[in-house]
Amino acid sequence: MNEPSVNYDVLSPVKFLTRTAAVYPEKVAVVHGSTRYTYLELFQRVNRLADALRKKGIGKGDKVAFLCPNTPPMLEAHYAVPMLGAALVSINIRLSANEVAYIINHSDAAALFVDNEFAGVVQPVLDQLEKVKLIVTICDVSDARPFDGPDYETFLTTGAPDPVPIAVDNERDVATINYTSGTTGLPKGVMYHHRGAYLNALGEIIEAQLDANSVYLWTLPMFHCNGWCFTWAVTAIGGTHVCLRAVLPEAVFRLIETEQVTHMCAAPTVLVMMSNYPGAKDLKIKGTLRIMTAGAPPAPRIIENVEALGAVITHTYGLTEVFGPHSVCAWKPQWDSLPTEERAKFKSRQGVPYVTTQYMDVVDPVTMQPVPRDGQTIGEIVMRGNNVMLGYYKDPKATEVAFAGGWFHSGDLAVMHPDAYVQIMDRKKDIIISGGENISTVEIENVIFKHPDVLEVAVIPVPDEKWGEVPKAFVVAKQGKNPTAESIIDFCKQHLARFKAPKIVEFSALPKTATGKIQKFKLREKEWQGRERKVN
Amino acid sequence: MNEPSVNYDVLSPVKFLTRTAAVYPEKVAVVHGSTRYTYLELFQRVNRLADALRKKGIGKGDKVAFLCPNTPPMLEAHYAVPMLGAALVSINIRLSANEVAYIINHSDAAALFVDNEFAGVVQPVLDQLEKVKLIVTICDVSDARPFDGPDYETFLTTGAPDPVPIAVDNERDVATINYTSGTTGLPKGVMYHHRGAYLNALGEIIEAQLDANSVYLWTLPMFHCNGWCFTWAVTAIGGTHVCLRAVLPEAVFRLIETEQVTHMCAAPTVLVMMSNYPGAKDLKIKGTLRIMTAGAPPAPRIIENVEALGAVITHTYGLTEVFGPHSVCAWKPQWDSLPTEERAKFKSRQGVPYVTTQYMDVVDPVTMQPVPRDGQTIGEIVMRGNNVMLGYYKDPKATEVAFAGGWFHSGDLAVMHPDAYVQIMDRKKDIIISGGENISTVEIENVIFKHPDVLEVAVIPVPDEKWGEVPKAFVVAKQGKNPTAESIIDFCKQHLARFKAPKIVEFSALPKTATGKIQKFKLREKEWQGRERKVN
Repeated sequence: MNEPSVNYDVLSPVKFLTRTAAVYPEKVAVVHGSTRYTYLELFQRVNRLADALRKKGIGKGDKVAFLCPNTPPMLEAHYAVPMLGAALVSINIRLSANEVAYIINHSDAAALFVDNEFAGVVQPVLDQLEKVKLIVTICDVSDARPFDGPDYETFLTTGAPDPVPIAVDNERDVATINYTSGTTGLPKGVMYHHRGAYLNALGEIIEAQLDANSVYLWTLPMFHCNGWCFTWAVTAIGGTHVCLRAVLPEAVFRLIETEQVTHMCAAPTVLVMMSNYPGAKDLKIKGTLRIMTAGAPPAPRIIENVEALGAVITHTYGLTEVFGPHSVCAWKPQWDSLPTEERAKFKSRQGVPYVTTQYMDVVDPVTMQPVPRDGQTIGEIVMRGNNVMLGYYKDPKATEVAFAGGWFHSGDLAVMHPDAYVQIMDRKKDIIISGGENISTVEIENVIFKHPDVLEVAVIPVPDEKWGEVPKAFVVAKQGKNPTAESIIDFCKQHLARFKAPKIVEFSALPKTATGKIQKFKLREKEWQGRERKVN
Repeated sequence: MNEPSVNYDVLSPVKFLTRTAAVYPEKVAVVHGSTRYTYLELFQRVNRLADALRKKGIGKGDKVAFLCPNTPPMLEAHYAVPMLGAALVSINIRLSANEVAYIINHSDAAALFVDNEFAGVVQPVLDQLEKVKLIVTICDVSDARPFDGPDYETFLTTGAPDPVPIAVDNERDVATINYTSGTTGLPKGVMYHHRGAYLNALGEIIEAQLDANSVYLWTLPMFHCNGWCFTWAVTAIGGTHVCLRAVLPEAVFRLIETEQVTHMCAAPTVLVMMSNYPGAKDLKIKGTLRIMTAGAPPAPRIIENVEALGAVITHTYGLTEVFGPHSVCAWKPQWDSLPTEERAKFKSRQGVPYVTTQYMDVVDPVTMQPVPRDGQTIGEIVMRGNNVMLGYYKDPKATEVAFAGGWFHSGDLAVMHPDAYVQIMDRKKDIIISGGENISTVEIENVIFKHPDVLEVAVIPVPDEKWGEVPKAFVVAKQGKNPTAESIIDFCKQHLARFKAPKIVEFSALPKTATGKIQKFKLREKEWQGRERKVN
């Protein structure tokens, strides 16, 4: 089944590169600082990498781990590894040595590629790695080679540039394994299949409106859901990948102008960073800059601020288990004429399934019955279809729980509006139950974001003798501003039912994941020390 | 397998409507004269039709034939019939009674829907129809009900508007059967599968750049490759279908303006008609009008003329057997600055595979070896992949011939340019072999099209004692012009190798198919009467 038959071909995202290299061989595929590779060069580098791996005995069913920021080797691995029938394990570069060792061992990785900036994370656990037989060092910021084994460019020379056969027998074979950051417990390995990655890449092209002239800036880590499948989508359409090692506002704004970026993806916290960058107002966008945001519910105010810079926000929603975005807040022309604030409110809803994803609902998680479409009744978001993972690697029990009732359980609590748009109220474990009432932390945060002195905010439940739980807000003030706790609480009482206003406000920095998600569990852990919190 | 599992869902184009009706229930789905249906109404009409058919015993594996121009019922059938697991047979309305009877019988159609304008084609052969147990009359231009059986709107009322389960077990089940017009021999029934139709619809969205604001004018018959899969693509993206019973230039130009059409598809002869319409120069296009053209190689001059009206031409190429377009002349920015005539020449090449089609080559049809990529060596275009038909219905022998060597043989002769773009030189049976030299009739036609007095042209081989075959041109002059045969021949000698100039020129109307394709075989038949012509 490797070779296509006359009327059947295994769907695999690695095949997009074959077509694009044939159609646009001379076109710039990858920009990384002053380095530029054409699609022909990218194709040849990918085949060299695949052939070099093959010569080291890597093949069908093997796992290859990468610890690498958004550089060309990380992109190349998205083609070279799955085309061998092996699975790519792209690891979050912000994890600790123990977490990285756990993932490498749990995934059974036989080869490990490490960007030398992150060598220090691997060195302390080197002797714990059980199955790794090959370590390749990626030298990007320096020439340091701290491991036994070749550097990446030397390793490439051991492979031939000629097309390596695509060894995917079945479109539901594993293409990649993405470990969830795991807000509690050990990381789980989410298995992506070729079919889902292919279809989701087409879905991204359609929803993000990519075309052959698109220039995509890599503000989103490729280790996060394989870059929401844009690693494959941008190549499929013949656009240009602009790499980015670290998301620094100065670099982002410079590249948007110099490379004439048309598309990027980012978590809401990256948008906050962008809109608060002092040089933001000088940004000159030629044509249209489309920013897809997901990863956390974006406050309407953030959307407003970024669109004021001249960008167009597409708000999508998904999880690692569904290959990244699953729904989009599909925009309707009748909303164009609304006041800015109203428009931003509509745009902050999580919306409707992609053309390619189809199945999403808000249900009572026990009965699996859809909640009323009233915009008020809270239920759990569930999904199913071709873009749901095969399961968690070597964890049938967790898979069974996640797939209970024949749907994937997102753990996100939401309402279904009368117009069939979903809106998230909270994570299941984040929602506050105060005196028997559900209080959405997202709703409180959206109000506090409107306070003129507030840069960032996170609200969590804290224990309370009388009410069981009450809301507490963690606030980061804007530079030069010094709001009081009272002014925040009063502001909430003006804009919310009084019982939803936080009882306590603390001013401190917020813990975040590598993708910019605020880690509420870390705040909760501190507040709940020694006490048990019940979550359904 | 009807119900999606948590991570697998059968790909079927009928599912696009379910999603769009949920996301855009209030949006105009279909415009037909003064009639407008929203997506909710379209969805309900489709379910009524499916349920009504179900109540008549139509189900899995059955065939339902339609003889109907581009009206709402024809579109509705593209969802209602395949969702039952049955196959839609949409018949060319320009065929003769005998041809229609042959197709109805050969396809084993159990139900027949006839637009009453075309009742006269069915009536003479009514007693020959072998398996038809239900005839429904579609009353659009009049109330005439010439058959026993209900009219369409009454039939709809016998079904319920509630969602009918989609009964597709396997994504490679037959969704539709499209009979080729068959330039020689009996029509053959091309079997489309759900998977191919789903993927090709996504391919059309991507290549035509459809989005939710698109308005699609139905200048292309839906009975031709199911409207190149735009029947499904426009619905998938949530655009608006503008129906059109007959392609009259006045109506086309009026609807482009009043409905603010953004997209249409048309054979090159429709483009000729459009650019020669006296009112063409007054056309006011708001935004962008994208016209996809295919069905015959368009002369560069035609492309030039239509783009001068303000439209953007996307040139694609395919055949019924590959679900319509398979390749696109993907446009490169470096061609933008070329002189108009040069640009049109580049745009008239058949190009490269779609993102979703992948596999196309030009080969020696016997050895199956690719021809050199020199833009000169002629071979046959072959395709394979997910958008190739399952085969010809009840004709394994013809299927075997078409699939020889594991590729679908297009019968089109072409060259492969050094940049991997395909350019058609001729149909296998059209090419002229004169004194041992291959002469492309397309090449001669492209030159004659540049003659200032020429409206249309077709070139064919005619028998010649000395050379075996020589070119003969059939020319239609522009209104008020009266070119001589000598001026045409001299014009060719100035722009072509002398031996390629036609020896004879005749001024007469050209025979055409319903989709506007010139029927060269009819011209050849007349010229070759009683003589045998050898074709490889």
